[in-house]
Amino acid sequence: MSGKLYKKNHTIGYYECDTTGRISMPMLVNNLLRVSGEQSRELGVDDAFVDKLGLAWIILQYEMHIKRLPRAEEKIVISTQALSYNKLFCYRQFKVEDAGGEEIVSVNSTFALMDTEKRKMARVPEEVIAPYESEFSKHLVRTPKPEKIDVTEAASKEYRVRYLDIDGNKHVNNSKYFEWALDVLGYDFLATHIPVYLNVKFEKEVHYGELIQSEFNVTEQDDGNTISAHRITTAGKTNCELSAVWEKDS
Amino acid sequence: MSGKLYKKNHTIGYYECDTTGRISMPMLVNNLLRVSGEQSRELGVDDAFVDKLGLAWIILQYEMHIKRLPRAEEKIVISTQALSYNKLFCYRQFKVEDAGGEEIVSVNSTFALMDTEKRKMARVPEEVIAPYESEFSKHLVRTPKPEKIDVTEAASKEYRVRYLDIDGNKHVNNSKYFEWALDVLGYDFLATHIPVYLNVKFEKEVHYGELIQSEFNVTEQDDGNTISAHRITTAGKTNCELSAVWEKDS
Repeated sequence: MSGKLYKKNHTIGYYECDTTGRISMPMLVNNLLRVSGEQSRELGVDDAFVDKLGLAWIILQYEMHIKRLPRAEEKIVISTQALSYNKLFCYRQFKVEDAGGEEIVSVNSTFALMDTEKRKMARVPEEVIAPYESEFSKHLVRTPKPEKIDVTEAASKEYRVRYLDIDGNKHVNNSKYFEWALDVLGYDFLATHIPVYLNVKFEKEVHYGELIQSEFNVTEQDDGNTISAHRITTAGKTNCELSAVWEKDS
Repeated sequence: MSGKLYKKNHTIGYYECDTTGRISMPMLVNNLLRVSGEQSRELGVDDAFVDKLGLAWIILQYEMHIKRLPRAEEKIVISTQALSYNKLFCYRQFKVEDAGGEEIVSVNSTFALMDTEKRKMARVPEEVIAPYESEFSKHLVRTPKPEKIDVTEAASKEYRVRYLDIDGNKHVNNSKYFEWALDVLGYDFLATHIPVYLNVKFEKEVHYGELIQSEFNVTEQDDGNTISAHRITTAGKTNCELSAVWEKDS
């Protein structure tokens, strides 16, 4: 699998970090998507180009492997590459390297194009995908799904969609799902645990004014790690499922 | 008034913008404070240095004049300068210039140092302030106060402090007060109005787990502009007052 590689340097701002001094998951996601957006612009197929075709990119899934989350003022290199695509799905990889060239984060993502009028998934047109030089393959990439929450045991918290949850694209910013899902774990857990794996599957967009239920389970594993399983719902419909594996912060 | 000038280039990310496609107030504030933080580090008087003296910077007030808010992907130059100080207060200016060199945002701010043990304001020590080369002046700078809300007419919304409202400094990120204060104005207002003036006065820090009341009034003026007055309280105590003048987005 190939595809043009695009890289960008970034220095982590203090305001991108949580209480552990490491970049928060929402800000990591914002930075990743910014880099793929820049690649698209550089290749002449930015959001405005896609919009003129009556289409919009949607993100279906992320699978994130985290060796280490970078800290405030750390210099990182974010790279991205459209790996392959089929009739409906586009597979994009993101990597974060630290200043020493070590790969510290690796993310596999699945994108699709939505027909903005019909609100349905659309076939990937050649003119949108060709510039990335990714490989066409009929083969569907099988990404593992997030761990399911045990609904009978789930705890839940309510969140309201705020004005600033909507970004310049007039949709809920993708990173916000991470905030709603993970915030329920609470200060004591989040300040002492680091995610080493995240799996996020998006089902249905959340809109301004909606009331979100963020449900979750936490399970301790024999190896000392913790698995958390999450579900975001609005009016009883699932918007997003997420699961994470956490290590104790050392 | 003088003081060393520090400048930094920044390109606005899409995720820093609200639905109008312009940088949001919280992200503007994050970017400004990042630049003053960098200056302090460059001058050898960063937060860690100040912390070793048993002190911490606190922000008391911002007065912001906005000609134009920069848009996603726009390149700006942020500059900052410690203008003057007296026994207790330090006055710092921030400016944002666009790529054409036009000043589009100007911010006057008042900082002070807190004795972290006594939780009281401390005298500004020479070793902290000297590197900025700002002028000592007994003269207190009289910054206008925010417009007061009319409590009898105020509407109010509740906000919960989330884990990610706390940043790497283990305090509520300064920008969050702007989000809590302004979110109450709602989508229809915020998507069609641009702030041209903001005045924010901080009284008392908000902590994790607290329930915030964000109260506000809106008054239409004869010139077509709108004034909004805001107050953030927790358990009946005022944490922050804010007022803003808004123009219709054209």
